[in-house]
Amino acid sequence: MLVDMSLEELWAYRPTVAEPDDFDAFWQRQRDEVASHPLAATFVPSGTDLHTVEVADVTFAGHGGTPVKGWLVTPRNADAPLPTVVEYVGYGGGRGLAHERLLWASAGFAHLVMDTRGQGAGWSVGDTADIGDTGAPATSGFLTRGIADPAHAYYTRLFVDAARAVDAVRQHPLVDDERVAVLGGSQGGGMALAAAHLASRPAAVSSSVPFLAHFRRAVQITDAMPYGELTRYCSAHRDRVEAVFRTLSYLDVVNHARRASAPALFSVGLADPVCPPSTVFAAYHAYGGLKDIRVYEFNEHEGGGAHHVAEELAFLRDALG
Amino acid sequence: MLVDMSLEELWAYRPTVAEPDDFDAFWQRQRDEVASHPLAATFVPSGTDLHTVEVADVTFAGHGGTPVKGWLVTPRNADAPLPTVVEYVGYGGGRGLAHERLLWASAGFAHLVMDTRGQGAGWSVGDTADIGDTGAPATSGFLTRGIADPAHAYYTRLFVDAARAVDAVRQHPLVDDERVAVLGGSQGGGMALAAAHLASRPAAVSSSVPFLAHFRRAVQITDAMPYGELTRYCSAHRDRVEAVFRTLSYLDVVNHARRASAPALFSVGLADPVCPPSTVFAAYHAYGGLKDIRVYEFNEHEGGGAHHVAEELAFLRDALG
Amino acid sequence: MLVDMSLEELWAYRPTVAEPDDFDAFWQRQRDEVASHPLAATFVPSGTDLHTVEVADVTFAGHGGTPVKGWLVTPRNADAPLPTVVEYVGYGGGRGLAHERLLWASAGFAHLVMDTRGQGAGWSVGDTADIGDTGAPATSGFLTRGIADPAHAYYTRLFVDAARAVDAVRQHPLVDDERVAVLGGSQGGGMALAAAHLASRPAAVSSSVPFLAHFRRAVQITDAMPYGELTRYCSAHRDRVEAVFRTLSYLDVVNHARRASAPALFSVGLADPVCPPSTVFAAYHAYGGLKDIRVYEFNEHEGGGAHHVAEELAFLRDALG
Amino acid sequence: MLVDMSLEELWAYRPTVAEPDDFDAFWQRQRDEVASHPLAATFVPSGTDLHTVEVADVTFAGHGGTPVKGWLVTPRNADAPLPTVVEYVGYGGGRGLAHERLLWASAGFAHLVMDTRGQGAGWSVGDTADIGDTGAPATSGFLTRGIADPAHAYYTRLFVDAARAVDAVRQHPLVDDERVAVLGGSQGGGMALAAAHLASRPAAVSSSVPFLAHFRRAVQITDAMPYGELTRYCSAHRDRVEAVFRTLSYLDVVNHARRASAPALFSVGLADPVCPPSTVFAAYHAYGGLKDIRVYEFNEHEGGGAHHVAEELAFLRDALG
Amino acid sequence: MLVDMSLEELWAYRPTVAEPDDFDAFWQRQRDEVASHPLAATFVPSGTDLHTVEVADVTFAGHGGTPVKGWLVTPRNADAPLPTVVEYVGYGGGRGLAHERLLWASAGFAHLVMDTRGQGAGWSVGDTADIGDTGAPATSGFLTRGIADPAHAYYTRLFVDAARAVDAVRQHPLVDDERVAVLGGSQGGGMALAAAHLASRPAAVSSSVPFLAHFRRAVQITDAMPYGELTRYCSAHRDRVEAVFRTLSYLDVVNHARRASAPALFSVGLADPVCPPSTVFAAYHAYGGLKDIRVYEFNEHEGGGAHHVAEELAFLRDALG
Amino acid sequence: MLVDMSLEELWAYRPTVAEPDDFDAFWQRQRDEVASHPLAATFVPSGTDLHTVEVADVTFAGHGGTPVKGWLVTPRNADAPLPTVVEYVGYGGGRGLAHERLLWASAGFAHLVMDTRGQGAGWSVGDTADIGDTGAPATSGFLTRGIADPAHAYYTRLFVDAARAVDAVRQHPLVDDERVAVLGGSQGGGMALAAAHLASRPAAVSSSVPFLAHFRRAVQITDAMPYGELTRYCSAHRDRVEAVFRTLSYLDVVNHARRASAPALFSVGLADPVCPPSTVFAAYHAYGGLKDIRVYEFNEHEGGGAHHVAEELAFLRDALG
Repeated sequence: MLVDMSLEELWAYRPTVAEPDDFDAFWQRQRDEVASHPLAATFVPSGTDLHTVEVADVTFAGHGGTPVKGWLVTPRNADAPLPTVVEYVGYGGGRGLAHERLLWASAGFAHLVMDTRGQGAGWSVGDTADIGDTGAPATSGFLTRGIADPAHAYYTRLFVDAARAVDAVRQHPLVDDERVAVLGGSQGGGMALAAAHLASRPAAVSSSVPFLAHFRRAVQITDAMPYGELTRYCSAHRDRVEAVFRTLSYLDVVNHARRASAPALFSVGLADPVCPPSTVFAAYHAYGGLKDIRVYEFNEHEGGGAHHVAEELAFLRDALG
Repeated sequence: MLVDMSLEELWAYRPTVAEPDDFDAFWQRQRDEVASHPLAATFVPSGTDLHTVEVADVTFAGHGGTPVKGWLVTPRNADAPLPTVVEYVGYGGGRGLAHERLLWASAGFAHLVMDTRGQGAGWSVGDTADIGDTGAPATSGFLTRGIADPAHAYYTRLFVDAARAVDAVRQHPLVDDERVAVLGGSQGGGMALAAAHLASRPAAVSSSVPFLAHFRRAVQITDAMPYGELTRYCSAHRDRVEAVFRTLSYLDVVNHARRASAPALFSVGLADPVCPPSTVFAAYHAYGGLKDIRVYEFNEHEGGGAHHVAEELAFLRDALG
Repeated sequence: MLVDMSLEELWAYRPTVAEPDDFDAFWQRQRDEVASHPLAATFVPSGTDLHTVEVADVTFAGHGGTPVKGWLVTPRNADAPLPTVVEYVGYGGGRGLAHERLLWASAGFAHLVMDTRGQGAGWSVGDTADIGDTGAPATSGFLTRGIADPAHAYYTRLFVDAARAVDAVRQHPLVDDERVAVLGGSQGGGMALAAAHLASRPAAVSSSVPFLAHFRRAVQITDAMPYGELTRYCSAHRDRVEAVFRTLSYLDVVNHARRASAPALFSVGLADPVCPPSTVFAAYHAYGGLKDIRVYEFNEHEGGGAHHVAEELAFLRDALG
Repeated sequence: MLVDMSLEELWAYRPTVAEPDDFDAFWQRQRDEVASHPLAATFVPSGTDLHTVEVADVTFAGHGGTPVKGWLVTPRNADAPLPTVVEYVGYGGGRGLAHERLLWASAGFAHLVMDTRGQGAGWSVGDTADIGDTGAPATSGFLTRGIADPAHAYYTRLFVDAARAVDAVRQHPLVDDERVAVLGGSQGGGMALAAAHLASRPAAVSSSVPFLAHFRRAVQITDAMPYGELTRYCSAHRDRVEAVFRTLSYLDVVNHARRASAPALFSVGLADPVCPPSTVFAAYHAYGGLKDIRVYEFNEHEGGGAHHVAEELAFLRDALG
Repeated sequence: MLVDMSLEELWAYRPTVAEPDDFDAFWQRQRDEVASHPLAATFVPSGTDLHTVEVADVTFAGHGGTPVKGWLVTPRNADAPLPTVVEYVGYGGGRGLAHERLLWASAGFAHLVMDTRGQGAGWSVGDTADIGDTGAPATSGFLTRGIADPAHAYYTRLFVDAARAVDAVRQHPLVDDERVAVLGGSQGGGMALAAAHLASRPAAVSSSVPFLAHFRRAVQITDAMPYGELTRYCSAHRDRVEAVFRTLSYLDVVNHARRASAPALFSVGLADPVCPPSTVFAAYHAYGGLKDIRVYEFNEHEGGGAHHVAEELAFLRDALG
Repeated sequence: MLVDMSLEELWAYRPTVAEPDDFDAFWQRQRDEVASHPLAATFVPSGTDLHTVEVADVTFAGHGGTPVKGWLVTPRNADAPLPTVVEYVGYGGGRGLAHERLLWASAGFAHLVMDTRGQGAGWSVGDTADIGDTGAPATSGFLTRGIADPAHAYYTRLFVDAARAVDAVRQHPLVDDERVAVLGGSQGGGMALAAAHLASRPAAVSSSVPFLAHFRRAVQITDAMPYGELTRYCSAHRDRVEAVFRTLSYLDVVNHARRASAPALFSVGLADPVCPPSTVFAAYHAYGGLKDIRVYEFNEHEGGGAHHVAEELAFLRDALG
């Protein structure tokens, strides 16, 4: 069933999303800060039992210099330069095991799947630790970690990691510097939009059922996790609501999407209670580059599933040449 | 939490499972009947956008001559003969889209994923109609289809399909006749055990969290679907309970496992309410060949997940040489 | 609570419901096809221990000539001709046991309760197999059976059965040919509307909380089963959505109601999540004959319950003279 | 699934159930007290539109002289004396509407369905006020009403009503004084067992899935309502637990069953979480007369449903001659 | 998430709420009736082990002369006259134990917490029997007790008790006659509004997330208990709906609020499914005196919790001087 | 209902709980490390509007020197030395607002309620930040933070804080150095047992429904949060199970209880699914000092509620003289 607006209303929905005056200055500071840490990208061949692809265990210095992990999967015996995708994963998951994500390399791409700091104890495993919570207690969950101050918010760190992953993958000899796309679903889809703004020259963006868009609307229309973490936090800290949403305004991917320019493919499920359609369309309508969206009328947060993977493959084949 | 016995009790649990006197005669009749239909296996190259593997759209004549679909995925430019796996899928799913299952071919195997007649409108799509559906698969409720008579039971048809899939894959020029394994999880794990008995010379078997084992115990210890379909049926048809379990005794994979001889790997989740551990161990203990089992103490029906895929890969690499 | 529109909005709600150009031609073909099978109605006295009524075990040839079962309950020692009701039952149920439905005969009517092919393993038992089930009904999942093609859709078969039941009951010597009404609740209410169109000269119609009306709206407003089967199907088969709704347009009882002319009584529960009020009113407003509706403000799918039975009795006493 | 012991264990389960020393004296006082109120049974013909049966609106003086309602349904034009059943209804329901319960009269019995004081705002309606309700029944919460003292406990009043109903029905000219049975399901099944002890010369008893048996065990094995009302009460009033169970020991139908002597039929569902099997068997094993029990292995609180009605009919036909 | 209107809509929401013509006459009769019973307020020192406050066990004659209990907590060694609060408690609870509510006395107020007749077997215990309970409170189901007639409705009795509690507390020598406020949350908040109308000269009112306001709207927008008791009742008694709402129109605190004149503080949770915001605002907008409301955007029925207690303390410090 | 063993079995249940060889050495290192940070306890008067008690805003240096907050509530104008309680709070909560916990001071005790680092965004608010996650990703929730290594585990930090709070409160002039007890419920009850071992000379211990006891058993018998966080973690990190339980063996309060010597009062709810009774009894039986336990047969995790508070008050009045 429809959990939000009808498709007609969604096409017409162009909300105002709060944006702080110093949004650009804030993110410039984040970029400057991380630039002070050497990238230190390493690619160590991983001993998998796979024949058609090769896997490297990746490490690079993310936000604050923290070592961030990933897997780079490439077609065996491929010739450089390869079109490349950097993938960000959904909430609770990590980079997983080396043999879990074979599609992009099987389709001829170099594929970096970036680990998510602190996460990776849910549906897929991770190996990257986050630093601390400096400044405010959080609920269980990541959305409110460091929420007292955008400079210490968990997702600030994660967005910086996401941008750095694009720099890191370019260090690999097989990667074509001009053909690096970013993609992901849910949290990964939100990160792809952040990277569309923050990373250096992304060639294309695929953002599926993105999370982290239009928080104010999200908490009004759904109680589902992880947006529900905000509700829980604000229901206890009744006196910190404005501060919370001020921090979130730096993270809101609607504001990042507005500053992006690479061609982008979105997807949305009209029955998705986790990332409600109106929040996805808020980001879609704001997006600054060429864009298209696939609408899955009967789907919840799984969105287009394997059908949409085929759409993504076609889109990136086209966008990356 | 533990949903069934402790691990200690499971190792000691060797229940008596009902087996009809004419079990072997019944299945010989099924084999004879299907043998009267030409196998008619075809392999049509499928237009995917994949570089490292090739996909063929497979059709062969299953039970009653019904055309059964599948995908054959092989490493691109591979040299015959290849070690081969035939995969059966879980309840509600179908063969999916051509790019969904890349692991086995990426690891150097020929890989046939068989469609499940009538299913494939759940978590993955299917394209094979069961008799009576005439042209399209339907949603759930398969366990009690044709339950009045083993000759007309849905799972009799499906087990015959499963055995025929092994014959069918051997028609492909890349497949090594002597190195064909069967595998699957949940319903697919039950079918792998049935195929271990009914198929021609399977070289190895991997049965993960198998369904369709020890029905009598299953309905006493869980209400979860799909075993719950039996409970629902018997709660209405109070006067047909014995007939139902008589039909099921021809299908119970404990009885099929007893007649198998290929080396086998099992897996089980101690917190699995869908295929409770004691039913899995009933099949494991009965299994007639060399066998091993991986126990996942904290997992529900997902069992070992990607970790167990690595175990399966190692096992089959070893078993198929 | 209200699960759909307010009563005011419902009275004003007159949606456009898709109707295929060949709707009438299609149903004419179904009628012609079934007419080629002899009706073969039989009435075998059933050995109940009841004193005031008599029960006959009914069989007649439904769609495709399939034998369809039913019970005919009549007042003991009644004089022909009797006013008569043909009852269709709700989703998942069957004709039940011979002593379960005593109201209509106790009120002086001849009463045929028609079994539902393939169903009858839920809240009441059944004895009629659908094609493909060969010998026994199965559990749920009927809405998407044969959905690829209206000619093979399950509900096409069921609607033909429903129309034939009216012919069948007229074969009984006690039945007054001119005074045969059709009735039912939920699925039975939808079938009553289909029979209002497809059966021969029904004298009156009672359709309570009807299912199978305005599918497009239903899936937007509820996830409850059985409409939820459509959502589940379309969420997997994302590429078949239009085909699904094309098939459903032949079945939609809004289109059947439009072609009916007998006087009709409807009922609706304003808190009904299974057959949402707006779908019921869509059928009500479209209905071609004299009509009335009882609105139960606080009721879910149980609608008016025993209170509405009294309404039905009064309505049919009046309508059948 | 099994919610309690296995069938084998149930057959062997003979628990000690607390019984107060003055149990018999207490109930003698209740009988004496009610005997001081004239029975005042009236039978007013009810204007239903039924042909084969007649319905009378019954009123008689129950506990404390409170007017208790009921329906008496009899075969039209029947000849006295008729075998007779007094039916008690399940928790939350009332006598319903006059046309709701037609089976027993259709089978040739006189049938009194007794209203339940204060109840009847749930699945069927009622018309009898408990003291304090002054004019209309209310919704649930009856198990702890007056729990501080057996003399004021709600179920003491109800059990006295149940016994009086047997006296009342005997006032009707069609009723055969020597052939009055008591029956009911759930709460009605518990009341039937109480009436088996407290009523005057019941000729037979049918107690289906009885409630109100072995409270101590019930609260340890289930949280389902209505036993859960006790748990809720004791979880608040931690200092009144012993007093609560002392009051309940006067009501426990195990103690009433022990004092009964008429032939009895029981039923039980092995998956019944509302009236767990071990509590039913506790009453069954204690029952003082000839007895039999039907076990429904796959059923929850619906027990044997219409199948068991057939069993009851056969049993009472036999027992009442 | 928002469960009802947006805040903007709530500020504009001024519904018409049914009010019977004899509303004032009815309540005058209630006041007259209770005035015929001597108040008989007693204050017995309670043996707690507290040092800073003193607790008295209070009894006074409520509706019909029924003894109603309470605790009076006062600062130890306080000098008269004290500002005073009379507190009513939420649904299902009672006055609790003597040491449970220490805030108001610790803040320098005399504090009477009134027991709720018949309740107090839920989250806190009670000691006051309603008529018919004879000796012990019972579990839930109060909204429909005596619903057939406002003169016998449970909440009529409770509102009279609430008004009498204000008279009772004034009998205590420490209490300042001119400075008695009434307060409570949920049911207690509704009672505070009733007392604002019915009690003698309340000096201030604090009504948090009040229950019992605008019943017609409540049952349309929520199924949550206790409003759900009405839905359940009306879904069975389909023929008594108008009578039910007529009785409720005497109780609706919107009608009581309209007649109040003391300064009042309200609170509301915008995510409260138990007492939906629009029903709270209906009472707020109708309130006849000076008023203010605290809106808790992210809270459910807990409302402002301890944060709002601080608001209440500030408000009453100010209002009572 | 019973969620674990019967009371009889609980009295006899004395499980072996894993304890690492260097348990004492590990905790000595923790004590030595924190001792290197000055305690720096400050008590700043807090501007509440309370008359009978005074509240100070407390800060002291906890694990790693992190500033830990608390409230110290004392009777107004009290004379030193006062008997004193240090209270630890339950999972998800913080020290709350200054006026939330008035019982102990009202009863004449000095009362320090310690904030819980990183928590306090749930049912009560907190103001203390935790440091980082150093060394391993966690699930949402605190139980798996730093689980890779006992030296970095979250609960190691928290237990050190708990012990330091006892030192801190002794800095206050009103506190009687020899009469400081520790207490808490759930997580706070586990912390009280840890403090019973780790703090300096606690005079008495009250541990209600303690969490953090016998983890191995807990995860086998419950899926409820927060123990469920372990299950979730281990279900993803299938290869880290032994490491997880090794870390937990340093935290298990069974091992801390074994080393305690002050008199202790425990409580347990036999229906508690959050901290199952067998885990509570494991700690109780192991406890090294004089001990007693109150058993609440019908209660879940709320345990004895206000009734048990009275028990605690009596126990501590007695134990602290």
